[in-house]
Amino acid sequence: MDLLEGLATTRAIRRYRPDPIPEDDLARILFAATRAPSGSNRQGFRFVVLRDGEKAQRARELLGRGARTIWEAKRVRDGYDAGTGAVDKSPKARMAATMEHFTTHFHEAPVIVLAALWCHREPDLELGGAVWPAVQNLLLAARGLGYGGVITGWHGPCLAELRAAIGMPDDPRWQLVATIPLGRPVGNHGSVRRRPIAEVVFEDGWEQPAPWAIDPPGTRFTSAGPPVDTRR
Amino acid sequence: MDLLEGLATTRAIRRYRPDPIPEDDLARILFAATRAPSGSNRQGFRFVVLRDGEKAQRARELLGRGARTIWEAKRVRDGYDAGTGAVDKSPKARMAATMEHFTTHFHEAPVIVLAALWCHREPDLELGGAVWPAVQNLLLAARGLGYGGVITGWHGPCLAELRAAIGMPDDPRWQLVATIPLGRPVGNHGSVRRRPIAEVVFEDGWEQPAPWAIDPPGTRFTSAGPPVDTRR
Repeated sequence: MDLLEGLATTRAIRRYRPDPIPEDDLARILFAATRAPSGSNRQGFRFVVLRDGEKAQRARELLGRGARTIWEAKRVRDGYDAGTGAVDKSPKARMAATMEHFTTHFHEAPVIVLAALWCHREPDLELGGAVWPAVQNLLLAARGLGYGGVITGWHGPCLAELRAAIGMPDDPRWQLVATIPLGRPVGNHGSVRRRPIAEVVFEDGWEQPAPWAIDPPGTRFTSAGPPVDTRR
Repeated sequence: MDLLEGLATTRAIRRYRPDPIPEDDLARILFAATRAPSGSNRQGFRFVVLRDGEKAQRARELLGRGARTIWEAKRVRDGYDAGTGAVDKSPKARMAATMEHFTTHFHEAPVIVLAALWCHREPDLELGGAVWPAVQNLLLAARGLGYGGVITGWHGPCLAELRAAIGMPDDPRWQLVATIPLGRPVGNHGSVRRRPIAEVVFEDGWEQPAPWAIDPPGTRFTSAGPPVDTRR
């Protein structure tokens, strides 16, 4: 697959076929992840691959519980069962159905990767630059080999138990940052939906239009009505 | 260029030819950046492209000063002129020469991109997942089109002046996260050097070896002696 095409067509995949991922493919995906940059080439990123080992079973159970805890709270908080969410086939109702299925089944994904980071200083937005590019590489490499995944925070609600389950050192400088299920997608990759590029790319100064920043033909846009007002 | 090859060969490029980047290529690079994932597809990332506009001139001046401030402090703090750093052609001396050249000239790079993020909540490591994948996409797309760049924090020392210079809103929820120079590399891309994959990829549990995690033939490794002891 072409690099630029891969960048434009890697989208969140939340339904997986049960087929296992061959180890050769896993090796290529994880190798690509570890080629990512990090400040001073420190490479503080670590990846724990969960398949069907003993610790993986326990970790999957905890992560599945975490997923449902987060989704059930979000479902209520964001009113997924009210308004258009109660209307069959509305975007909101479809997202709710997707998330319901995802959080019920994600712990069965062929592979779940946990991404961790050694924080040599207080973790903040900038230190994220030492791990998120590696996570993105992982998702892109998976796409290149016909797999899909999605970044989740399902480790959040079960953090202490999960760390104990996988034998992660009890040191706050090791942070778990992402839980990424991977597998062959059910259905196809489709194309990503984003804001028009003109809304997010500026030239010379803030909110100054970049006349050359044009979405290529066939680009699909975020359907959620008007752009989010970030100035509220 | 093949996606997996691109992931494995995108390395930090710190010397640029003076050739401008055609607008069509800029559009493709920025488009790829904006295809990245973000939590709830919020797309809070923003990119300001600096070329030769009026504000860009002032921003370049400030960023150049920031680069030199940071490098001069690091040079002293990390003893780049002592020990092996004083030995001609040692890795340390070569890195010092590279950084000296880079921080003196980076403000002249054909394009400098500033990456910003709308922080809908307190910024932390996890929120970085909303902007760093886009930054990585940007670097990968540049690689795919024959350009190179590197993630820097040169905006750090001049943050307030820089924000004023580009007209960024005086709202702490808008955070500048990265300064990325881009251009055609002087010389070639070379291959990245990283730790052996077995040091960073585990299976089933923390620090449990993943027997399938093998570096492909020809992989080049970090030359900085023994792996950093992250448990100190």
